[in-house]
Amino acid sequence: MTTSRLWHGFTDMSTVRHRAPFTITRGQGAYLFDAEGRRYLDASAGLWFCNVGHGRAEIAEAAQRQMSRMAAYSTFGDYTNEPAEQLAARLAELSPTDGASVFFTSGGSDSIDSAIKLVRRFWLALGLPDRRVILSRENAYHGGHIGSTGIGGIALDREGFGELITDTARVAWDSAEDLEKTITSLGAERVAAFVMEPVIAAGGCLFPPQGYLQAVAEICRRHGIVLIADEVVTGFGRSGDWFASRRFGVVPDIIVCAKGLTSGYMPLGALIVGDRIAQPFYDGTAGPFFHGYTYSGHAGAAAVALATMDIIEREALAQNALSLETRLPDLMSPLTDHPMVQEVRTGQGLMAAVELNPQALRVTPGLPMAVVASMREAGVLTRSLVGGQIQFSPPLIIGNSQATEFVDAVLTGLNTIPPQRT
Amino acid sequence: MTTSRLWHGFTDMSTVRHRAPFTITRGQGAYLFDAEGRRYLDASAGLWFCNVGHGRAEIAEAAQRQMSRMAAYSTFGDYTNEPAEQLAARLAELSPTDGASVFFTSGGSDSIDSAIKLVRRFWLALGLPDRRVILSRENAYHGGHIGSTGIGGIALDREGFGELITDTARVAWDSAEDLEKTITSLGAERVAAFVMEPVIAAGGCLFPPQGYLQAVAEICRRHGIVLIADEVVTGFGRSGDWFASRRFGVVPDIIVCAKGLTSGYMPLGALIVGDRIAQPFYDGTAGPFFHGYTYSGHAGAAAVALATMDIIEREALAQNALSLETRLPDLMSPLTDHPMVQEVRTGQGLMAAVELNPQALRVTPGLPMAVVASMREAGVLTRSLVGGQIQFSPPLIIGNSQATEFVDAVLTGLNTIPPQRT
Repeated sequence: MTTSRLWHGFTDMSTVRHRAPFTITRGQGAYLFDAEGRRYLDASAGLWFCNVGHGRAEIAEAAQRQMSRMAAYSTFGDYTNEPAEQLAARLAELSPTDGASVFFTSGGSDSIDSAIKLVRRFWLALGLPDRRVILSRENAYHGGHIGSTGIGGIALDREGFGELITDTARVAWDSAEDLEKTITSLGAERVAAFVMEPVIAAGGCLFPPQGYLQAVAEICRRHGIVLIADEVVTGFGRSGDWFASRRFGVVPDIIVCAKGLTSGYMPLGALIVGDRIAQPFYDGTAGPFFHGYTYSGHAGAAAVALATMDIIEREALAQNALSLETRLPDLMSPLTDHPMVQEVRTGQGLMAAVELNPQALRVTPGLPMAVVASMREAGVLTRSLVGGQIQFSPPLIIGNSQATEFVDAVLTGLNTIPPQRT
Repeated sequence: MTTSRLWHGFTDMSTVRHRAPFTITRGQGAYLFDAEGRRYLDASAGLWFCNVGHGRAEIAEAAQRQMSRMAAYSTFGDYTNEPAEQLAARLAELSPTDGASVFFTSGGSDSIDSAIKLVRRFWLALGLPDRRVILSRENAYHGGHIGSTGIGGIALDREGFGELITDTARVAWDSAEDLEKTITSLGAERVAAFVMEPVIAAGGCLFPPQGYLQAVAEICRRHGIVLIADEVVTGFGRSGDWFASRRFGVVPDIIVCAKGLTSGYMPLGALIVGDRIAQPFYDGTAGPFFHGYTYSGHAGAAAVALATMDIIEREALAQNALSLETRLPDLMSPLTDHPMVQEVRTGQGLMAAVELNPQALRVTPGLPMAVVASMREAGVLTRSLVGGQIQFSPPLIIGNSQATEFVDAVLTGLNTIPPQRT
């Protein structure tokens, strides 16, 4: 075996380099195959992105068609292209805000960093440059760039980089009162925006307490604070609707999306910006928003997104997520009685997490990793989240049987006496 | 005409929304076509990215082939895929550093933010957490995220966002002495890294003074400072070699690349990391580098990069850039005598800029924009850089006649009395 030159993200390379790698060679629908042709259920949809499933010929063909015509030029100034225009119109149409504008990026982290820059310029344009503080929630994950890492709510992700972005603060993940209190103590006149995932994903699959989203939206409105919904995970059917905001009846000023938008076939992200924020930039009072990316409006990526959205629509995948949502508690009930399981977390849409018993985690800190490893042996691929929860967020094309496959694999994993890893 | 929902980057939307958009519908080689079928020379290779030219069927087919097998999974932990492995090996092989590792991202800005995070963790692992300051050059452009904007050297790009990343400092773009002085005044024990574009691109196409790159490399080595070469523009043939570092005989600790790597057919970026920096993460002393992106190791993007590099190699495009480099001064000489031209800047590889006369710019501040607009009428697409220079960085597949086409269009632009814009 030649030495691999690939540096894996979020990974202790001193352990990986001495193991044979696990090579995924192809995918079909909700399943993936390794180099030996073994089949695995993709129980996490990759990293929450593959909503329409793998190996979709029509998306690959849409990419090929557009890339052989023109993959990309630039959309700065008055330049544009048809796929980017069509996609912007379609996203604006689906957004809960009227008259939204769409700013394209190449992913979720890009979109968060862009949103931070946008709201700070917005307040400057309104003559309120002191409105700079970006509020976010504990346990939130917003991405990997300097800004998106800096506003994250998972301490481990921020450690050891020195101070990243300035003027940030965090609030409890589950308390609208804490948001209100923090705003009061900072002074609303210093707060630019509040960023939140409608459902906290990587931070542990945390569904919002009843009424929480409506309450924080009201607090932001009352204090004039820009509400940014990070729908990178919850968008494009995952939450049972095109956007969780729509489902929860909340109208954010900015919706940030990525992942499901292309189901990961090509990197793409977007900010869907309500007219309150866009107006000063569109009416000339703010001047240009001096920001943009090489691939903002990438024609190939936009064509891929349009093909992905066609599938979500035609195959009614948001409706399938909704329908599975009502069946999930039942389908996952064999897990709830297991002594090592604390809770099976379900809520809106097709996302769930199996939380292990705190005592079992204390006795065997490596338990989640061991369960995940054992599940792989049993033919199901997933991962453990920050708090050790086992992630379930498969492609939205699955039925009951794949949910059962996941449940059985978790049981197998829990019942295989796992080697203790410390 | 329905209202467009597309928010264009770096653009005053109050002017664009009232104009008919300029729609690019397809490209072939060094040429692009508008909705009426008019042909234009792409004199900037989009935003410096389209090194192999537009409409390359074999790249589109490589994308289609990989995407219909498996577009993406994840390369966290021990997961991997063949295209990402092959591409990592190929980039490591081409790098001037021995035994390099490759960390993938989705673009240049991602790679810069990642490099900042990486070097700060590196120094922490070595027990020197005070080494946090990132040095960069005046006029440098390193990208659009919070970190990459924050270390940029173009003041206009940083304005109005509040303080972005902390612990940064800038040095004169053309003086190794100023780098030395700045390090001395900060104290080398506080400096993490020095980031530099071998040729400053968006900041005005500024070629390094004779001996500059070797001198700054020596200064960094002497002070133990990590040298990061931002080769997002200069890589993949643009500078007459795979990397400008190779050409200039400089061995950076980290090479950051993107753009030409895929010629823009799909978003992709990479950090090529020398073993000095990788070692503490690979031998286990540093623990994991807690960082990564959804599409780090995207199989589809890697397949596109491999196909792009095959073309660069097979068609000897770096050699073509080298050969045009020697002919450019002659080919562009009709411009040097024009009274409105201050200088025609050429240097290494296929990148050049026409600098307009400062007095003409004072009289008509909108001159560069007007020249660019007039060139479009004449069938040549390009843009003006920060200081008003007219950019010439076409696909590397061109010959003399396209250089002449550009020169003629600039002359036409200069000789059309431009409407004064203020």
